[in-house]
Amino acid sequence: MTTGHLSILGMGPGDPELMTLKAARLLRASPVVAWFCRHDRPGHAREIAGDLVSPTATTLRFAYPFTTEIPVSDPAYLVRMARFYDDCAGRIATCLRDGQDVVLLCEGDPFLFGSAMYVFDRLHDRFPCTIVPGITAMAGCWSVAQAPMVHGDDVLCVIPGTLDAASLTTRLEQADAAVIMKLGRNLEKIRTALRQTGREERAIYVERATQPQQRCMKLTEMQGPAPYFSIILVPGREDAR
Amino acid sequence: MTTGHLSILGMGPGDPELMTLKAARLLRASPVVAWFCRHDRPGHAREIAGDLVSPTATTLRFAYPFTTEIPVSDPAYLVRMARFYDDCAGRIATCLRDGQDVVLLCEGDPFLFGSAMYVFDRLHDRFPCTIVPGITAMAGCWSVAQAPMVHGDDVLCVIPGTLDAASLTTRLEQADAAVIMKLGRNLEKIRTALRQTGREERAIYVERATQPQQRCMKLTEMQGPAPYFSIILVPGREDAR
Repeated sequence: MTTGHLSILGMGPGDPELMTLKAARLLRASPVVAWFCRHDRPGHAREIAGDLVSPTATTLRFAYPFTTEIPVSDPAYLVRMARFYDDCAGRIATCLRDGQDVVLLCEGDPFLFGSAMYVFDRLHDRFPCTIVPGITAMAGCWSVAQAPMVHGDDVLCVIPGTLDAASLTTRLEQADAAVIMKLGRNLEKIRTALRQTGREERAIYVERATQPQQRCMKLTEMQGPAPYFSIILVPGREDAR
Repeated sequence: MTTGHLSILGMGPGDPELMTLKAARLLRASPVVAWFCRHDRPGHAREIAGDLVSPTATTLRFAYPFTTEIPVSDPAYLVRMARFYDDCAGRIATCLRDGQDVVLLCEGDPFLFGSAMYVFDRLHDRFPCTIVPGITAMAGCWSVAQAPMVHGDDVLCVIPGTLDAASLTTRLEQADAAVIMKLGRNLEKIRTALRQTGREERAIYVERATQPQQRCMKLTEMQGPAPYFSIILVPGREDAR
């Protein structure tokens, strides 16, 4: 018997219409549909998939064992996450060995800060895999903000807000345009780095882009906490027109 | 009479199935379809659109007045390109004032190094605009290469190969993961910068990703010239699994 095929599908930033035709086709036809989620949520990727999931499909819901309860710096974090990804990969492998095709749904793009990379790393040597790229959260954000990001020779840096203050400042100094991800409790540190590099006035804050509850404003007008999945955009040089 | 609506559609990296459901819907319904192209080519964005363009649609083909005949550093370049974009925007504005909706097709994503930004800059104050994000060329490349790009706290830099050698080296030193665009005649300079920063062995060369003629190999195994629209990927740190 031939083994099944694993397709890792980028589902885009939130609006189900920002799925690709290819992701929609593979999703509709798949006998097994898997995704990651918080233990207390249905899962953002699953919500985007909506009723494209076949009613007869087997579903594999991979609930993270923890989110912020264990800090990333704790050695236990890596050990327990590795065990979790081993288990997810094992459950997918069981279906593939049985000859069933599997799709794994990912928010945004699978290979840009996606959990699917850990499953891919564990399975791609043994099973045929296809990666279907998705619209990234950042592209959703700059489209909603109507902010052209990079012209000509601009350099774009995508920077996790989890970096320390000095690293944030250095990276921002090197970038013509920047996207800062993973805001959450890092927001004030990021504001300071933007101010120090003369970028605060240009910065745009975008939350839940392309979704019904989306918010978009100048960072200087934004108050209150930022959810982890919000983004700050710093567009590049003004264009030469 | 109400004016028409301008939708700027990201068409993705080449495979027509990597268009979004939203771009396909707006494209099919649009009475006017515009795109940029080289004077001697049908236009890559137009080729991706294929038969989704209505047979009754008015088509606006915007052929660049030159490509490499005038160097970017020549002041005449900016003047003549500005005049060209003025003309494109004017032709779109005529349709919009007549109450016709217009779609402008873009390879990749409209706001990441796209010519559509120059049209948007000229029209968005006067006409309602929607930006539909697209799968970027770089996401097409790393999906084809099956190369997970960024994990955890990695910083990703998108670098035009047109930068001078010293700037290329500095930017590569700052990046955990890098995407180098606009290769063409810059290839040897880029190879040198990658070697100096210890990244040449990890670098992956991808040409025409997601298209039938796609090529993907280690950069060290790649010989001969690189077309302008090829990309080098330097994946980030090995993951922690």
